[in-house]
Amino acid sequence: MTRLLISCRDRPGIVAAVSQFLHRVGANIVSSDQHSTDAAGGGPFFMRMEFALPAAVDLEPVARAFGSEVAENLAMDWTMWPAERPKRLALLASRHDHCLLDLLWRERRGELEARTELVVSNHPDLEADVDRFGVPYHHVPVVREHKAEAEQRLLELLAGRVDLVVLARYMQILTGGFLERVGVPVINIHHSFLPAFAGADPHQRAKDRGVKLIGATAHYVTEELDAGPIIEQDVIRVDHRHSAARLARLGSDIERVVLARAVAWHCEDRVLRYGATTVVFA
Amino acid sequence: MTRLLISCRDRPGIVAAVSQFLHRVGANIVSSDQHSTDAAGGGPFFMRMEFALPAAVDLEPVARAFGSEVAENLAMDWTMWPAERPKRLALLASRHDHCLLDLLWRERRGELEARTELVVSNHPDLEADVDRFGVPYHHVPVVREHKAEAEQRLLELLAGRVDLVVLARYMQILTGGFLERVGVPVINIHHSFLPAFAGADPHQRAKDRGVKLIGATAHYVTEELDAGPIIEQDVIRVDHRHSAARLARLGSDIERVVLARAVAWHCEDRVLRYGATTVVFA
Amino acid sequence: MTRLLISCRDRPGIVAAVSQFLHRVGANIVSSDQHSTDAAGGGPFFMRMEFALPAAVDLEPVARAFGSEVAENLAMDWTMWPAERPKRLALLASRHDHCLLDLLWRERRGELEARTELVVSNHPDLEADVDRFGVPYHHVPVVREHKAEAEQRLLELLAGRVDLVVLARYMQILTGGFLERVGVPVINIHHSFLPAFAGADPHQRAKDRGVKLIGATAHYVTEELDAGPIIEQDVIRVDHRHSAARLARLGSDIERVVLARAVAWHCEDRVLRYGATTVVFA
Amino acid sequence: MTRLLISCRDRPGIVAAVSQFLHRVGANIVSSDQHSTDAAGGGPFFMRMEFALPAAVDLEPVARAFGSEVAENLAMDWTMWPAERPKRLALLASRHDHCLLDLLWRERRGELEARTELVVSNHPDLEADVDRFGVPYHHVPVVREHKAEAEQRLLELLAGRVDLVVLARYMQILTGGFLERVGVPVINIHHSFLPAFAGADPHQRAKDRGVKLIGATAHYVTEELDAGPIIEQDVIRVDHRHSAARLARLGSDIERVVLARAVAWHCEDRVLRYGATTVVFA
Repeated sequence: MTRLLISCRDRPGIVAAVSQFLHRVGANIVSSDQHSTDAAGGGPFFMRMEFALPAAVDLEPVARAFGSEVAENLAMDWTMWPAERPKRLALLASRHDHCLLDLLWRERRGELEARTELVVSNHPDLEADVDRFGVPYHHVPVVREHKAEAEQRLLELLAGRVDLVVLARYMQILTGGFLERVGVPVINIHHSFLPAFAGADPHQRAKDRGVKLIGATAHYVTEELDAGPIIEQDVIRVDHRHSAARLARLGSDIERVVLARAVAWHCEDRVLRYGATTVVFA
Repeated sequence: MTRLLISCRDRPGIVAAVSQFLHRVGANIVSSDQHSTDAAGGGPFFMRMEFALPAAVDLEPVARAFGSEVAENLAMDWTMWPAERPKRLALLASRHDHCLLDLLWRERRGELEARTELVVSNHPDLEADVDRFGVPYHHVPVVREHKAEAEQRLLELLAGRVDLVVLARYMQILTGGFLERVGVPVINIHHSFLPAFAGADPHQRAKDRGVKLIGATAHYVTEELDAGPIIEQDVIRVDHRHSAARLARLGSDIERVVLARAVAWHCEDRVLRYGATTVVFA
Repeated sequence: MTRLLISCRDRPGIVAAVSQFLHRVGANIVSSDQHSTDAAGGGPFFMRMEFALPAAVDLEPVARAFGSEVAENLAMDWTMWPAERPKRLALLASRHDHCLLDLLWRERRGELEARTELVVSNHPDLEADVDRFGVPYHHVPVVREHKAEAEQRLLELLAGRVDLVVLARYMQILTGGFLERVGVPVINIHHSFLPAFAGADPHQRAKDRGVKLIGATAHYVTEELDAGPIIEQDVIRVDHRHSAARLARLGSDIERVVLARAVAWHCEDRVLRYGATTVVFA
Repeated sequence: MTRLLISCRDRPGIVAAVSQFLHRVGANIVSSDQHSTDAAGGGPFFMRMEFALPAAVDLEPVARAFGSEVAENLAMDWTMWPAERPKRLALLASRHDHCLLDLLWRERRGELEARTELVVSNHPDLEADVDRFGVPYHHVPVVREHKAEAEQRLLELLAGRVDLVVLARYMQILTGGFLERVGVPVINIHHSFLPAFAGADPHQRAKDRGVKLIGATAHYVTEELDAGPIIEQDVIRVDHRHSAARLARLGSDIERVVLARAVAWHCEDRVLRYGATTVVFA
């Protein structure tokens, strides 16, 4: 199975051109999702298709032909990803274990189309837990005055080795320079329902504000803190009896589910970024 | 805008054939959803497309051409419905007002692509409320021994005048004969999360069983009671403090929302029946 | 049935003192909720009790005795409210009908322990709808330069006649002076999950930010806009396909349910304010 | 901190008698919940209190005095449990790891007031995973013809060593004889929203029936299969795109959260059984 992701300006004939091309190369379209931001046409257009090629047909020449025969004319941004190739992940964590272990456990269960290449943490605490999954653990401490060195070390560990970086409650802010140079998407889990309670200590602030639901937000990381395109969010009901500590504990259940969904969807090529937002064909 | 709904056996080239045809007649595909029940192909296949024809092009000849040039070859069940034509509804109710008034109010707000032609009830109680919406109210009492006459009277009121019958807490069971003769889909709202608590008095039984969530189910009516294809369901959290009466009250909030969603989706041609289930492109 | 609400500083013996007093006057405690903000004691303490007095016993002398024998010693803020006396409401609205009509309909159904004394709007649009419920409708236009006169007119309509003011999508900001002089709590429904998207146009901003859930918040009104103590919140899942207009429509379903819950709880004496937050014994 | 759980017939003066007694022995009541099934009095009455005794006061004589001075007169079923004493658990599993590992992980994080004494499984598969938590793993195969021996072996492992048995997706039915002799409560997680889809293979049946939500139910085990008192339930939204296998995967996220909540509440003495249902002071 192959997945085709397309972004382009909307105009008549896109679906026809793509499906006709795929039909011609013998592909069977198994699923198809599309989204136009503007019903009148002319706005951004997004499409995701899954198709199966005949056993005898190679993906590479098909992709090349698609590029020159279809995508170029329609000025498409596009990718084709073979479903059997798992995304290579780096998981970054600090001391909280819930998101990190949950992702490793889901990968082992076969819930993620991904293979974790390495875990990096600015603390040594979680090494034994990660070892049990047979995944290399790198301890890269981050000291305020030597942050640049730490990011440099991170880049050396990650460069060219992964398709996605996941911040599984990594409590360090990544610089714009790092994001640019790492060259792959970075997904973060924030422990609040963004844009509410962006920044530090959201559970205490939620408690102080008396909100009746707390949440978590998985988003692509951009230079602007806690403002990147949102992939997934969820909430849980709370009340006055919950202390900030108990909110944090309840919140961790939401965090791991929300992050797992976001990572799974990204790995299944279900997420398209669009300005400050996303289109998620979940 | 026109909506195309298709069910057929899956095989390569369906999407290509449809989108190519639409492209040829100058249509712009605005949205497209598809679903295959069997990724290997050959199982049932469902598709919904919304397309815009050029102002100068009439729908009728397009539909005719689609039938002979595309649908026949691929043995499709299909419909094309012009989005600007509202579905004509009959609402059947008894004494509970919440579902009935909610639908009438949503129609007035423009939330439903529908026009209620008439309300029929086996009780006179809600006539004044319905009058305010300017909708005709027919009182058709149902006496056990004269049920056949009541159904006959119903059929006379409905025949050929509506596209959909909605049972908005209509507390009478319709016979298979009626369902056959009425000739249009019938949607019911059941005040439980089916298949739990099918039959009468679900809230008392939910209370006795100590469930922690109560729900509502909107489904197409079939001869087998409470077993028709489910369109939509939702639930609300409850606890030991809720009496059966309070469960009923809470439940009514779920019922009206679930029924409204189901009716809206049906009217927007988002629901395809498939055996005992449905495909909902919501 | 009588409801007793208490706020005081926590210390040993409060529950014993209250329950002993009630036992002595022959009351049967039917339900009891309490909340301490600080398990170590000494922090704020909240309690709600429902009790039934013997038929021969009057509430007034009981209340007086409670004040002098129990409440004074323990420096309690407290109220006793006879459950059979409905709260008198004023509903303020503008042009949106969904919250207003929903509250009137719930009152008619007996879902609210309340009686709406009057509706006031800065627009004439909803008068006919309100008339049908037999509730007086007052049109008090608000012109920017004459806002003081409008608030004065409002105060004349409300003063001494209501126990609670509900802003059922009333699109005017009330001044601190008004809030002080009106002398009763004011509940507002905000069409977002506060503190996210406080201020105007939350649905467009939610769309721009790409959030995956939209919500509504019912809160007591304070001088600081959209920052008063939250009573209830809820959310609904949305995605990229929803336009800002459709978000608003979906949101209105949440708004009316959230506002109805908040008003019902307030009328049943289930809400205690505590600084910027609330304790809700729901 | 000590927790007091009471069930008795409702009558005036219960709360007063209990709180007066606690006040007399110097206890500070930190929280109190009560529930009467019949507002008119005379029905079953449930109460949970948390109280702190002065450092110098022992629980045992207090409990003895409570029994003779308060509980006996009012014919109470009651327990006092010191909060600092964790419940001793046995976890029974088969091959599914998600519920088992989640409980062990939560215990390690300090989320459960419990200490797992042993894990028993009818399969050897999960031994390595359990070893890592330092918990003994016993493999007790169950062969149909020798079920009695297997249950006997289980009883030997459990007898007198645990306060609660948790079936963490244990795929064997326990006999009434076992339940009687084990002498402690047994909590099971069922992978459907009971009473819907009781019995085997609920996800396939949910798929066949086309339900729009799937769920999980944690309940006390009784001789009647899948009919014991429900402690907690939750659901997740699904649609036609989910295969039965994917429903099972989604369901496992619900199962582990629902089971964890039920076990935590039981361990915190928040659950009282009442006929076929429960009162949960969560």
